[in-house]
Amino acid sequence: MTIIFYDIPSTIGPWSPNTWKVRYCLNFKGLPYKTEWIEYPDIAPRCQQLGIAHTTMKPDGVTPHYTLPAIYDPSTKRYIAESAAIAEYLEEQYPDTPAVFPFDTMGLLIDFKDALNRVGIIAAHQFVRPAIHRILNPASQGFYRTTREQFYGKKLEDVAPKLDTEEGRVEWAKIEATFATVALWYSKNGGKGPFILGDRVSWADFVVGGNLLWFKAAWGEDDKKWKDLMSWQGGVWKTLSDALKEYEKQLD
Amino acid sequence: MTIIFYDIPSTIGPWSPNTWKVRYCLNFKGLPYKTEWIEYPDIAPRCQQLGIAHTTMKPDGVTPHYTLPAIYDPSTKRYIAESAAIAEYLEEQYPDTPAVFPFDTMGLLIDFKDALNRVGIIAAHQFVRPAIHRILNPASQGFYRTTREQFYGKKLEDVAPKLDTEEGRVEWAKIEATFATVALWYSKNGGKGPFILGDRVSWADFVVGGNLLWFKAAWGEDDKKWKDLMSWQGGVWKTLSDALKEYEKQLD
Repeated sequence: MTIIFYDIPSTIGPWSPNTWKVRYCLNFKGLPYKTEWIEYPDIAPRCQQLGIAHTTMKPDGVTPHYTLPAIYDPSTKRYIAESAAIAEYLEEQYPDTPAVFPFDTMGLLIDFKDALNRVGIIAAHQFVRPAIHRILNPASQGFYRTTREQFYGKKLEDVAPKLDTEEGRVEWAKIEATFATVALWYSKNGGKGPFILGDRVSWADFVVGGNLLWFKAAWGEDDKKWKDLMSWQGGVWKTLSDALKEYEKQLD
Repeated sequence: MTIIFYDIPSTIGPWSPNTWKVRYCLNFKGLPYKTEWIEYPDIAPRCQQLGIAHTTMKPDGVTPHYTLPAIYDPSTKRYIAESAAIAEYLEEQYPDTPAVFPFDTMGLLIDFKDALNRVGIIAAHQFVRPAIHRILNPASQGFYRTTREQFYGKKLEDVAPKLDTEEGRVEWAKIEATFATVALWYSKNGGKGPFILGDRVSWADFVVGGNLLWFKAAWGEDDKKWKDLMSWQGGVWKTLSDALKEYEKQLD
């Protein structure tokens, strides 16, 4: 039975940090899946058509907000949306596949995204989101620009601080400091390997890895920011990126 | 070699959430220790005298702030302050004792206190701190009152919202909601036991347990708030409290 995996396309393939987290899980667990690509303007209507629940509300507090990733599992006839909810579903539905939450760590790991945001990774978004626009397909670009410009209250081109200004350097140094905190967590794994739990990959690595792939998609590998990130904290993010590559295949 | 454990006394014995976390670790690891009790006004001078480092700065940003717990380990001749730093030290110095960070989870667990605060447990402090005053020894009461009243900008007696007012009920409901989030984490442990990692106790449980003991010390077991807490979320906190009792002995 092949799982249907709903993802957002681009000119360079998968790019969304949240859909990547699920793709990592599906690949790691070895579960067969097929991607259905949905352009931004089609996400809400397609979810409504399929009966996929909204995951949050829009800022007005009353309008349902539909997001990807989502999956359809034909073996249970269930649709699930939201990356952590999907990971939890897959873990419980397929207990004989490799554990994304090993050693009963689901309670500790399920909100790991919030832990990253709390230490400040969310401050990196201003450097990432504007650059994603250029890799999206034309069918998604208008929708993306409108919604993100609404969110930031300025033109996409004016969102990212410029690295050749004092403000830009300060903002960029904050991102480095954030990653230093996360690197400290990664250093406390008994020196056993590239993952936060040492030699055992887990949901936490997929959350960090999804962010790394998002940054790479936005900036490209030749960008100074990507090169900075790969060199920070003794290269721990380069090591993690390399270790996660085996779970990054696209099945279709 | 007996570790010296620096704790803050009261009329009912140990009560501080942060020193309890370390007492849990020492008991769980079976490391011999002896408590040196230090009243509040003596913490800074005694730490300076012994050469125990300050852990933070006072609100002015320049005056060193000395806090307990701290330990002295005669086998390494080292003084360590701050509960998570002590736990990390004990784990690395005594690798043959039971692991407080099992399965290489130190990176995930070391900042668990922040995770609790992020979901709102810090909002409970207003209900707890004022009530701690009455169990302290006279030698600590004045210092405690002065510093806490400075922090809150009001008399200790006016800090806790009254449960028979609308504001008090709203604030109390927020605490219940916070614990509901943490209970959700505790529910995701494979149904295997009272701890966040199932049947395996860890630093996360000691952090929660330290808070529970602090609440109990402040309110007493006959108080409505304690009874509420013990009944919330299907009794998960009662179950956890009971399971942690074996690590609550006082060695002296």
